Amino acid sequence: MNFIKKIVSKSRSQEDGIFFEKISKILGFKPENLKYYKKAFTHRSANIIDEKGNPFNYERLEFLGDAILGSVISAFLYKTAPTGDEGYLTKTRSKIVSREHLNELGKDFNLLQFVESKVAPTHFGENIHGNLFEAFIGAIYLDKGFVTCEKFIERKIIKIYVDLDRLDGKITSYKSLLIEWCQKEKKSFHFEFIEDNGIEGQKFFSVKLSIDNKVVSKARATSKKKAEEKASQRAYFAFQEKIDGK
Amino acid sequence: MNFIKKIVSKSRSQEDGIFFEKISKILGFKPENLKYYKKAFTHRSANIIDEKGNPFNYERLEFLGDAILGSVISAFLYKTAPTGDEGYLTKTRSKIVSREHLNELGKDFNLLQFVESKVAPTHFGENIHGNLFEAFIGAIYLDKGFVTCEKFIERKIIKIYVDLDRLDGKITSYKSLLIEWCQKEKKSFHFEFIEDNGIEGQKFFSVKLSIDNKVVSKARATSKKKAEEKASQRAYFAFQEKIDGK
Repeated sequence: MNFIKKIVSKSRSQEDGIFFEKISKILGFKPENLKYYKKAFTHRSANIIDEKGNPFNYERLEFLGDAILGSVISAFLYKTAPTGDEGYLTKTRSKIVSREHLNELGKDFNLLQFVESKVAPTHFGENIHGNLFEAFIGAIYLDKGFVTCEKFIERKIIKIYVDLDRLDGKITSYKSLLIEWCQKEKKSFHFEFIEDNGIEGQKFFSVKLSIDNKVVSKARATSKKKAEEKASQRAYFAFQEKIDGK
Repeated sequence: MNFIKKIVSKSRSQEDGIFFEKISKILGFKPENLKYYKKAFTHRSANIIDEKGNPFNYERLEFLGDAILGSVISAFLYKTAPTGDEGYLTKTRSKIVSREHLNELGKDFNLLQFVESKVAPTHFGENIHGNLFEAFIGAIYLDKGFVTCEKFIERKIIKIYVDLDRLDGKITSYKSLLIEWCQKEKKSFHFEFIEDNGIEGQKFFSVKLSIDNKVVSKARATSKKKAEEKASQRAYFAFQEKIDGK
């Protein structure tokens, strides 16, 4: 009996080790308390209760993460758009934290791979991605506090996904901007794709963008178009001074 | 000419000194940068622009303060109500940050005294109090960061104004609870009021609550009833163990 217990607890800790590594990779730092992240990925159907008898699932963390995300995005907008009035700030925040955008973020981080549930993930519907993403933000806040959570959101979300020029409709495609510039400068450009499979048949596309046969940026997303656009945006920011200077 | 300039700048700095003292008293700590607080109390009618040509008034700070307050209250509820589901948390947060409640907070802090405007404050309407309050929270966040702002909200708002038992409808009057307890314990109780005037005819009532001729709590509010209730609540918490123990 003791022997079985040991095996079980050993395999549990190996499982935790893999989870710890994967979460650390997404976070860019080591989590303090894995419990919060486990909760963030536990669906109510798993029917787990904690040591105090309260439901152990991500629903309350969604509430928390949504509020924390809202305040970080608000502070970012306040600082970045000094000419925008209250109406502009409110509208732009809504675009950034839209259900559609949160679902995209959840998918890009491939959070579904961590879900603990009694129901097959195919039954969850599209919003599961955004819900997991919000819960994940809640878990980071509880684990590491506001400042670390804010830095994570800035580094992994705002810097990569939030582009005010685009949200304001000033730029509709970074790919077009880049192509235009390459043609003008007589430079060659080339996208190279690798396809990989997430769980539940969710395909991901990794892309390398080369200009004059040198890789200038990389990206990964759930469609070729999105991956191209992300890589183009990254290259655009890297080349921005050159492009704007012409 | 130089002489006039000096007088003006001296009187300006005296004015700042008074403002600094009053704000420090409300905050419970010294502000770092008064500019944020000035902005929080400048109405758009004052028509002021900052050094970069952007409007200098509290409207954008309201947006920021609202979001920061929302996240602090959310984190508080998440931690304090472990049995409440997402619906309960959302509903309770709405009650705490309701327009009515924010107006009450703005009034109790008497923020209207600081307003810089070209319009008489009587034209502002009731919501000015809540708007100033939100902008004030935004200013604290910009001046001192999230953690200090959170502590201010916990110390000056949650501890004094937020009472989950009451919000949940379990307790409707602390005054009744206290009176009941005093009668049972054969103790005398007594409220003593002092009336003072804020600006624009806004009256305030300060109350001292004595039990067996000893002052046990104090409070100040815009009506006698509210002041009594606040003082009773404070006394209730102080006596809670005794009361609950019976």
